[in-house]
Amino acid sequence: MSQIRHALDVKRADDFAQWYQEVISAADLAEESGVRGCMVIKPWGYGIWERIQRLMDDRIKAAGVQNCYFPLFIPLANFTREAEHVEGFAKEMAVVTHHRLIADGKGGLIPDPEAKLEEPLVVRPTSETIIGDAMARWVQSWRDLPLLTNQWANVVRWEMRTRMFLRTTEFLWQEGHTAHEDREGALKETHRALEMYRACAEEDLALPVIAGEKPENERFPGAVETWSIEAMMQDGKALQAGTSHYLGTNFAHAAGIKYQDREGQQTLCHTTSWGTTTRLIGAMIMVHGDDDGMRVPPRMAPHQVVILPMLRDKPEDAALVAYCEELREAIAGQSALGERVRVLLDVKPGKAAAKRWDWVRKGAPVIIEVGGRDMENGVVSQLRRDALWDQATGKPAFTTPSRDACSTGIGALLEDIQHSLFDEARDRRDAAIRRDVTTMDGLADHFENGGKYPGWVEVQWSKPTGAALEAVVERLKALKLTVRNVPIGAAPADGTCLFTGEPAVERILVARAY
Amino acid sequence: MSQIRHALDVKRADDFAQWYQEVISAADLAEESGVRGCMVIKPWGYGIWERIQRLMDDRIKAAGVQNCYFPLFIPLANFTREAEHVEGFAKEMAVVTHHRLIADGKGGLIPDPEAKLEEPLVVRPTSETIIGDAMARWVQSWRDLPLLTNQWANVVRWEMRTRMFLRTTEFLWQEGHTAHEDREGALKETHRALEMYRACAEEDLALPVIAGEKPENERFPGAVETWSIEAMMQDGKALQAGTSHYLGTNFAHAAGIKYQDREGQQTLCHTTSWGTTTRLIGAMIMVHGDDDGMRVPPRMAPHQVVILPMLRDKPEDAALVAYCEELREAIAGQSALGERVRVLLDVKPGKAAAKRWDWVRKGAPVIIEVGGRDMENGVVSQLRRDALWDQATGKPAFTTPSRDACSTGIGALLEDIQHSLFDEARDRRDAAIRRDVTTMDGLADHFENGGKYPGWVEVQWSKPTGAALEAVVERLKALKLTVRNVPIGAAPADGTCLFTGEPAVERILVARAY
Repeated sequence: MSQIRHALDVKRADDFAQWYQEVISAADLAEESGVRGCMVIKPWGYGIWERIQRLMDDRIKAAGVQNCYFPLFIPLANFTREAEHVEGFAKEMAVVTHHRLIADGKGGLIPDPEAKLEEPLVVRPTSETIIGDAMARWVQSWRDLPLLTNQWANVVRWEMRTRMFLRTTEFLWQEGHTAHEDREGALKETHRALEMYRACAEEDLALPVIAGEKPENERFPGAVETWSIEAMMQDGKALQAGTSHYLGTNFAHAAGIKYQDREGQQTLCHTTSWGTTTRLIGAMIMVHGDDDGMRVPPRMAPHQVVILPMLRDKPEDAALVAYCEELREAIAGQSALGERVRVLLDVKPGKAAAKRWDWVRKGAPVIIEVGGRDMENGVVSQLRRDALWDQATGKPAFTTPSRDACSTGIGALLEDIQHSLFDEARDRRDAAIRRDVTTMDGLADHFENGGKYPGWVEVQWSKPTGAALEAVVERLKALKLTVRNVPIGAAPADGTCLFTGEPAVERILVARAY
Repeated sequence: MSQIRHALDVKRADDFAQWYQEVISAADLAEESGVRGCMVIKPWGYGIWERIQRLMDDRIKAAGVQNCYFPLFIPLANFTREAEHVEGFAKEMAVVTHHRLIADGKGGLIPDPEAKLEEPLVVRPTSETIIGDAMARWVQSWRDLPLLTNQWANVVRWEMRTRMFLRTTEFLWQEGHTAHEDREGALKETHRALEMYRACAEEDLALPVIAGEKPENERFPGAVETWSIEAMMQDGKALQAGTSHYLGTNFAHAAGIKYQDREGQQTLCHTTSWGTTTRLIGAMIMVHGDDDGMRVPPRMAPHQVVILPMLRDKPEDAALVAYCEELREAIAGQSALGERVRVLLDVKPGKAAAKRWDWVRKGAPVIIEVGGRDMENGVVSQLRRDALWDQATGKPAFTTPSRDACSTGIGALLEDIQHSLFDEARDRRDAAIRRDVTTMDGLADHFENGGKYPGWVEVQWSKPTGAALEAVVERLKALKLTVRNVPIGAAPADGTCLFTGEPAVERILVARAY
């Protein structure tokens, strides 16, 4: 087997964190902005986000949820309710205190002391309270329910340590907020959103996830139930990729979301909230990326197919471009995964080989090179990003279908790539979940000696609560572990709790996490 | 002719400003949020914005422009360049000075004095400078040009007086920023964006606009040329609905956007910027709204057709809903204006008449009511929102096509409504532009005595500059007038300048404006 010269300098196996940064840079997904903790999302990265938005928004609308837009700024008073119950309340949030800049007389600028706000405004870390206020205005009668709203927006959390896509001061997200007549309606919506996230992750982003309920200690503050989808990164760590909360009447009580029920009584609504963020892009990188850069699943790729004519700055180029343009048109007329194929004919100036490697690093699912020889023979040179290398020769694994076969076969090829990426990730994850650990020593041994990327362990527990749960959390924390969730559809418990020695009641996933 | 009882309390002819507020409320487009100058955009209003985004974004992408996302926060230093050249610089902007809230010990919250930012951050009023910084990093060689970027984002300008959609502290917009090798390339892009805005306004929003160049005094600071599209509201005032700027090398110089040209020389780029905002929704209200509420052009309507079964809370309802569902399906299979028809079957609880008037006020283009009698006869009762009243009877002008005729005719009907709304607005505007005013006295007389809503006047001028222009601006200001633009395609000048008495060189539009 020949030596393969990969496109990145850092390998996943050597330094996963460094590799992650290199993929983002090499695939031109995003970059540091110079503003603390804020990134610039570049066209290829933002194009992926637009695909996430488009596909998820279709699902959101199909469920009857309506998009709204709420203010960026939230009055301080909206947070005092929360602060009343918290000893030593302190929250990292961006606070607007002035509404004018003036010259300081020394060549610089300062906030104008004359333009200090009477009440500072907070840049939304979430819109929970301001949407709650609106719901209290909008809901009068049972006829107004369910009230199903969603917002696509930017939010700000003043993070001390940031990492692109995973944890940034400003990030993009959607937040669903719904109000219902009763517990049943709200629980049904909580599960609908969770299932929507699972379907988005698995069918669109090709990310295998495990959906389940979070343990008590991991609940969103004020939630009665918090559910999540969890994905395994290639370093074996878990990443929470979406959450859905059943909030009972807690938030309705705080915001005064009441309705006149069918019997004429004033009744509190049951509410839910659910969200996903640009961290989904981080998850896609860490699940699908390889030592040559990003691999974008076809459903998420802004360009699914990139055609690169091998231009030579000669008169013959015109014929080659025409040949490629015919191919582009033929491919654009094809469908894959229920949509028209998105194909780019890249005629930007530059060397063909350099452009090929740019698109490899970006992770375009299919790259098609066409040279003069190809044109003469009526063929194209086609590369699958998910099967880049010929292991025998150590060279890129080009195939050379006829131009017609290339265009008519493109739909099936893209669908195959979509499913291959999912299957590869699922198989890798499933192989990295141990289910045979029954003691704390075994657990510690696995994570301390189970290799560099030890994956997840599914164990049985007695579902302790309160102080007993806190003790478990502390013991796990010493191993840098957390309980991810109680997987839906896990086998019933039939053993003993690893932590308490009591009879187990359910199975939980334990892992290191982002 | 019978008396028509309109759905709103205020008529356009009586109090246009009050009418505008009432439409927004009655059509459920938006509401005050309780946060100073910020509005909540409700589902029907946000749905219209989503349509604007979708249709304009398709045009933006078709032109090869790529969407990115840049940070919400901009360092103070980015504004000092600007401030250096301005005596008594003072800018209304939201300034973030702290990154933490803590309890004040008296039940309230305060910005933590320990968490004061070393350098305050400004909430973006525009992204000109931060995108300029990115362009300076991204552009190296002529091969990187043109660089065509766009951003959909929220921005904040601390406005003293706000009005929903027209002038709010926070608003939503798109901002295009492009860099080119030379003047020709940048000018071409400036005009492409302007023409795109004209097409969006006229073809999508059914807003007739006049595209033209702004006079020197109305240029965006730093721009070499500023172009706009101007729409006439029903009170005769002008509203600038989009702008496109050719910035020369001014911004490239300030931000250091240079490239190695084809001869190997370091050269400054020529840049452009262009933007439109949620104020487009305000324009649609003031152009298309009537005394019964909003009228949404079919291309922009989240629901183009609303079907209202006249439910009676009786067992027969099921058959009626089934009859309507068949109609909904048949309509959803039709196309209008190049897209599938967007149809809603509204089975929410509530009295049919009340729901009809809700949809009239919202301005759904076609409302279809179906009662038991209609079902028996195989017909539906259909209402065109743009031709709501039977003038003879003073009643809503229902027609009763067969159910089949209704669905097969819906595409043509929606297209007719789209064009009728445009034609109505264009005819009204054209009738309200005078071109026969040749003296300042005539101009003053027209605007002082030309009726409540005096419209626009096109006059000839000598295109004064500098102090001479300032004098003209002052004289117009005394009449509350501004120069809107120099219309593209206006007749050549053939007379004398109204202001200077010199030979005229071009024609300009003069109007009161929002």
